[in-house]
Amino acid sequence: MTQTWVPVEGSLATPQGFRASAAAAGIKKTGTLDLALIFADAPATTAAGVFTTNRAAAAPVAVCREHLVRSRGQCRAVVANSGNANACTGREGLRGAWTTARSAAQLLEIEPHQVLVASTGVIGVPLRFELILKQLPTLVQNLSSQGAGDVARAIMTTDTVLKSCVLRSEVNGRPVHLAGVAKGAGMIHPRMATMLSFITTDAAMGPRVLDQVLRAAVETSFNRLTVDGDTSTNDTVLALASGLSGVGVRPGDRSRAWFLEGLTQLCQALAQMIARDGEGAKKLVTVEVQGARRPSDAERIARAIANSPLVKTAIAGNDPNWGRIMCAAGYSGAQFDPSKVDIRVNDLYLCKKGLDADFGEAAARKELDRKDVLIRLDLHQGNASARIWTCDFTRDYIDINASYRT
Amino acid sequence: MTQTWVPVEGSLATPQGFRASAAAAGIKKTGTLDLALIFADAPATTAAGVFTTNRAAAAPVAVCREHLVRSRGQCRAVVANSGNANACTGREGLRGAWTTARSAAQLLEIEPHQVLVASTGVIGVPLRFELILKQLPTLVQNLSSQGAGDVARAIMTTDTVLKSCVLRSEVNGRPVHLAGVAKGAGMIHPRMATMLSFITTDAAMGPRVLDQVLRAAVETSFNRLTVDGDTSTNDTVLALASGLSGVGVRPGDRSRAWFLEGLTQLCQALAQMIARDGEGAKKLVTVEVQGARRPSDAERIARAIANSPLVKTAIAGNDPNWGRIMCAAGYSGAQFDPSKVDIRVNDLYLCKKGLDADFGEAAARKELDRKDVLIRLDLHQGNASARIWTCDFTRDYIDINASYRT
Repeated sequence: MTQTWVPVEGSLATPQGFRASAAAAGIKKTGTLDLALIFADAPATTAAGVFTTNRAAAAPVAVCREHLVRSRGQCRAVVANSGNANACTGREGLRGAWTTARSAAQLLEIEPHQVLVASTGVIGVPLRFELILKQLPTLVQNLSSQGAGDVARAIMTTDTVLKSCVLRSEVNGRPVHLAGVAKGAGMIHPRMATMLSFITTDAAMGPRVLDQVLRAAVETSFNRLTVDGDTSTNDTVLALASGLSGVGVRPGDRSRAWFLEGLTQLCQALAQMIARDGEGAKKLVTVEVQGARRPSDAERIARAIANSPLVKTAIAGNDPNWGRIMCAAGYSGAQFDPSKVDIRVNDLYLCKKGLDADFGEAAARKELDRKDVLIRLDLHQGNASARIWTCDFTRDYIDINASYRT
Repeated sequence: MTQTWVPVEGSLATPQGFRASAAAAGIKKTGTLDLALIFADAPATTAAGVFTTNRAAAAPVAVCREHLVRSRGQCRAVVANSGNANACTGREGLRGAWTTARSAAQLLEIEPHQVLVASTGVIGVPLRFELILKQLPTLVQNLSSQGAGDVARAIMTTDTVLKSCVLRSEVNGRPVHLAGVAKGAGMIHPRMATMLSFITTDAAMGPRVLDQVLRAAVETSFNRLTVDGDTSTNDTVLALASGLSGVGVRPGDRSRAWFLEGLTQLCQALAQMIARDGEGAKKLVTVEVQGARRPSDAERIARAIANSPLVKTAIAGNDPNWGRIMCAAGYSGAQFDPSKVDIRVNDLYLCKKGLDADFGEAAARKELDRKDVLIRLDLHQGNASARIWTCDFTRDYIDINASYRT
């Protein structure tokens, strides 16, 4: 099984066994799409989820966790809304999320705990569930493979671009698909972002395998992403596997590695779309640290650099201020010797062995003035490495967030 | 000894036994003051310092650490420059800092390791020490109590206001003074800020006591300060005690508590000046968390809130988005129950028991639209509390930092 995964056109309904629909329920004041339903037709569909570690996790996160356990990973539907996060909304918020799941289940003729729910938007404002309940019958009626194209749009908040990716592979002449959508632009931080992501596949696997590979893929994609260091109350990645391709994924088998590779590729593509669309961002910034003694040192340094407002404003201004990069590495808590460090932007050395590399200012500004900027540190102390994605930090971030609620 | 400390007019030379001077050495391109010398006349003067924890600590920090040890806390002079941090400058940077100390010592007729050095400004650019060495004779010649008034100005970088504070107390009819200056506006984070602070006093104490009280005072002042989460390579707080007031401070004595109280008051006043002058800041924001089970929980939550770009942009926009405050508390890693939390801005409740307090939007905006904003959380779980100072986060921060080097 060395089959690769190739990007193709499509939607969440490209994998066999999925339909979806979206509606403008009036939760967003703008009157745009703000509600989506994803449904898996196959009764044997399996599901898994990875959620925020925030202690003030939102009501829909609590409901998802419960429903995945109670259904033993047999969930078949997702109801997602944007415009309101249903977070910090107490018992009423929980009750509303439960009622939403129960109503959708009734209409879809499945069990209530087979429905997952997700919300994104403002925190601490009661969600008017009647708006969702009113739309559910229409959403169920409109379920189609065409409708799946609208899901990515219906979950957008401050996102400026649709985030969607479909991959195709083939096993013994049988096509297999993986599809994903995501939203997220601010409040983005490892473990995880203010992000929702929904993934469908027609590969066949039990819920335990799906859970394992999903966690592994999230670890090296969404959890390597930071926009502003804020970990949201609502972060949710849900995956549904219909099994209809007839291609199985088994633990301890090469099929697992093959599927994990595709899932990781999908999640990394979505994570990069989120970083690139970071609030106010003009650039996708990849921070790569190599030559560390331990992976944890490499990761700490990469995260500290990717989270530093000073580094990110310098990148926004095309300012090759490598001292701030060294400074962030220095306070990361990682073990390293500053006098051995090389720092590059793309292929240009800014710093060699801890000292200014006497680069041309104009050349460095040109390297930074790209849509994709790679910041590379070589610590020259070992073989461990890590990579984190982020974006530059512009005044538009401030403008977007100074009046988000109002 | 229940004598209080009262703010008075003055400078670093208000405590007896200190003189200072400043010059424009040409390190700053603007031609403004960028070099200062502080000198203690009394041979029995003692000294202590607290420094950055950054692994890429600058050359002057390394020199200070060494000189405090080698002189056994008997340092009598400080040479400080702005415009260049002498950080990430390798052996040449170290050699330059040593040469500066040695030259100053010669002119002042003291030992080389009795001179402390401090630098602030751009990182990674070689400092032209010849500019400093050329000015040293004039600086020594100009030492005076009037000259002390210029020190605060000579260490400014992006600071927009002078940061200086003088306190007076009296013991058995003898006046005692504490004076401090500070600089710092960006790259400000606990353990510590990109800040320099120099403190003089005419109280009499051994270097060990001075070291202990300085560490204790820094812990509850400069270490409770955050502007952008970046811990600099150069953070330095230096204290010199001339002893000329004749009032002694002894360990295990009430005099220690009395002096610590004054020193803490001085450091907190300077820390608040720094937060208020945070790059682009319009407001001093105090985050106070009470009712925690453990002090570490209170501190974690207060720090997470004070470091959240989303919270700080909302405060800049007068947006009472308490959900972001709850969210930051949630990801702080602290133990608490979100459904018990009250959140206030000044005296107005935004959130009660984890739910929206149904506050008036206009009233909340008015509370946020002040120069001093107090964010208060009551966790209702215990008796521990913590307080952190920060500022709001405006687009001016981005503008200042996108082109700091150039």
